[in-house]
Amino acid sequence: MATHDIAVLTTGDELLSGELTDTNTGTIAEILSRHGYQLRCSLCVPDQEKEISAALSYLVGHVQFIIVTGGLGSTGDDLTARAAARALGQPLVINEEALEMIRRWFAARQRVMEPNNERQALLPQWSQPLANPYGTAPGFRLKHQNCELFFLPGVPSEMKAMFEQSVLPVLRRKIPEVSPLQQRNFKIFGLPEPRVDSMIPYSRLPQGVNVAFALDYPLVVLKLKAYGDTASELLDQAEAVIVKELGEHIMARDGEAPEANVGRLLIHSGLTLSLAESCTGGLIASLLTSQPGASAFLERAAVTYADSAKQNWLQVPAMLIQQHGAVSEACARAMATGLRRATGTDLALAITGVAGPDGGSEEKPVGTVYIALAGPDGVHVKRYNFSGERKKIQRMSAFMALEWIRRFTLRYLDS
Amino acid sequence: MATHDIAVLTTGDELLSGELTDTNTGTIAEILSRHGYQLRCSLCVPDQEKEISAALSYLVGHVQFIIVTGGLGSTGDDLTARAAARALGQPLVINEEALEMIRRWFAARQRVMEPNNERQALLPQWSQPLANPYGTAPGFRLKHQNCELFFLPGVPSEMKAMFEQSVLPVLRRKIPEVSPLQQRNFKIFGLPEPRVDSMIPYSRLPQGVNVAFALDYPLVVLKLKAYGDTASELLDQAEAVIVKELGEHIMARDGEAPEANVGRLLIHSGLTLSLAESCTGGLIASLLTSQPGASAFLERAAVTYADSAKQNWLQVPAMLIQQHGAVSEACARAMATGLRRATGTDLALAITGVAGPDGGSEEKPVGTVYIALAGPDGVHVKRYNFSGERKKIQRMSAFMALEWIRRFTLRYLDS
Repeated sequence: MATHDIAVLTTGDELLSGELTDTNTGTIAEILSRHGYQLRCSLCVPDQEKEISAALSYLVGHVQFIIVTGGLGSTGDDLTARAAARALGQPLVINEEALEMIRRWFAARQRVMEPNNERQALLPQWSQPLANPYGTAPGFRLKHQNCELFFLPGVPSEMKAMFEQSVLPVLRRKIPEVSPLQQRNFKIFGLPEPRVDSMIPYSRLPQGVNVAFALDYPLVVLKLKAYGDTASELLDQAEAVIVKELGEHIMARDGEAPEANVGRLLIHSGLTLSLAESCTGGLIASLLTSQPGASAFLERAAVTYADSAKQNWLQVPAMLIQQHGAVSEACARAMATGLRRATGTDLALAITGVAGPDGGSEEKPVGTVYIALAGPDGVHVKRYNFSGERKKIQRMSAFMALEWIRRFTLRYLDS
Repeated sequence: MATHDIAVLTTGDELLSGELTDTNTGTIAEILSRHGYQLRCSLCVPDQEKEISAALSYLVGHVQFIIVTGGLGSTGDDLTARAAARALGQPLVINEEALEMIRRWFAARQRVMEPNNERQALLPQWSQPLANPYGTAPGFRLKHQNCELFFLPGVPSEMKAMFEQSVLPVLRRKIPEVSPLQQRNFKIFGLPEPRVDSMIPYSRLPQGVNVAFALDYPLVVLKLKAYGDTASELLDQAEAVIVKELGEHIMARDGEAPEANVGRLLIHSGLTLSLAESCTGGLIASLLTSQPGASAFLERAAVTYADSAKQNWLQVPAMLIQQHGAVSEACARAMATGLRRATGTDLALAITGVAGPDGGSEEKPVGTVYIALAGPDGVHVKRYNFSGERKKIQRMSAFMALEWIRRFTLRYLDS
């Protein structure tokens, strides 16, 4: 993927102390990517004149367009204009046009201008001020050798408006029009990343399509990317190859969450579902019901922590629990069967296991999970041994359960 | 606050295309700040050998410690080791110690090692490998002139574990001990940020204590910060003031999640709980059971989407639902009462509402939610009108329910 000669420099102590996450870089990157541009780099420095100045000196020699955010406010730690003047060798002077912008901003709101606000008009000598529709601090634009610099406030709403109004049009005029990135995402469950990678027949993917991976536990996200006028066709070809090789492992595509896909399939099939969750404690139900329309297929769900709940609501015999334990193949089977009898749904899924950190034994260590699915053709049960801490085991268990439902529904729709 | 000679370099196309927000820089910054260190700068570049290499060359001349994250995976877009070798003028060789770590990782899990995984042992010649407890990719450590470089994987959980295990101890040994930032967090529910701000008697807070805010929907996080030898005392004083003013609105403190605090209080009180969720679809149960030890108080939970489920499991009369609707004060009351009768728990909480986007009416628009709590002293019911989209309404509803349980339990413990 080609990068473009654009860099972002953000300033702010709180971005480097872990207090605040920088969103401005992401906002700029996202807007640029819609126009086919990718940033060459982003940098973040504290509110210190020396550090801002050093970063500017580095970037001026490295890229053609620099977007700086933050440090244009009226308080003592707003030092960006001063740092820019120093890095670019220009004196700092009151910019009359900027001062007029600030005056008008206060006048329009019938508010009194504080002496501190005048400082916001102190800019490097050759600056061209940029209007700020939402705040007092004007931005500014500077040329230095072959480089163009844009200085914007750090407040995200002000930054975004000014970037779109004053920076993007310049970039689009000066950087040759490119066709934007197109992308297809495949969310893969049940295979680790190197395994997925080894299953991709790279030689059969059309040239111009790039493959990238991301993790979204427990999913591996496979991304196909292409640029240019033929991107759609190339991606269609690549997608056909990927779907042929990985087909059944693809749990969802593009922006859709796996739980949304499962819900959509259930609605499409007309199948109804009930759930009995022990170790996942309601996570499966919560995932499915986070999507609109879940009431069309989900009849009910039970979180049956106590044995009495398993006996009452799921008609699991007390004797069976005593004999085999609540975490057992027999119990999972009885939970699913009892649930289906109680609810009359097409599918009844039950899950019982040891999510930890306590409750494990030698025979059934933490991570032991039984899933049972009762359907029109009988009950299917399987034991899993998941690893990791409690929330990870719960999440993996919930996704495995969703995957069972997805595969059953797909086969049902096929038949 | 003084900055220290530490920089973070993150790599990844998706961080510069707006697809993914970098959290690793924030994680490192936050851990460092607990030890009194602040980053001098952070940099982000795409998965391109040339750009990674250029950034490393710049940083090597600028700071003493560099932490690099990302690009250590087994696929073609993992180029960090190669870029480091180029920037530092070292050949790339198979590191036997790293290879052994990878082999052991697979052997311990009885999994087959893919040929691609061997590539993860290709490191710059003088690298010292760093163990990765959670994944296949070892990290590595290098010295170059006066600079020390640490290379860690980009997966946040692996990165964090390795940073704490292999990097932090080195930094603490090599950078003079400073008095770290001390911080107290208060997670406040039910009040908007400007309201919280206006309730703080700033003049009564001791000098040297700073106040900051963050949002973690639906919570407002109030942070008190102080440096230096007297930080603890100053924060004790400030905390007393804050607790006096905001006391009952503080749902949890510091690192504890509200659901963990509620669970802890329930365990402490000995009260047992059952849940009947309609519009929240299992979210309350899922939050409570994500914490270890939930089985001590949670007897069971029902997600009763269908009316038949409300009738069966909660003994809500069909007539009542016909007359008042499933989203009604009468139904919420009947759900809680029926649940308590069925389970025999001390507390039975029921919730029913319209999470949207469909199902709203003029009388009961999307966001209408009834919460009912049945306890030893009878049933309490209340109607709420929440706003926002489905997931936001579900989250707000779940937190409100947790808040009911928390306040009941506190009063119970007080009495």
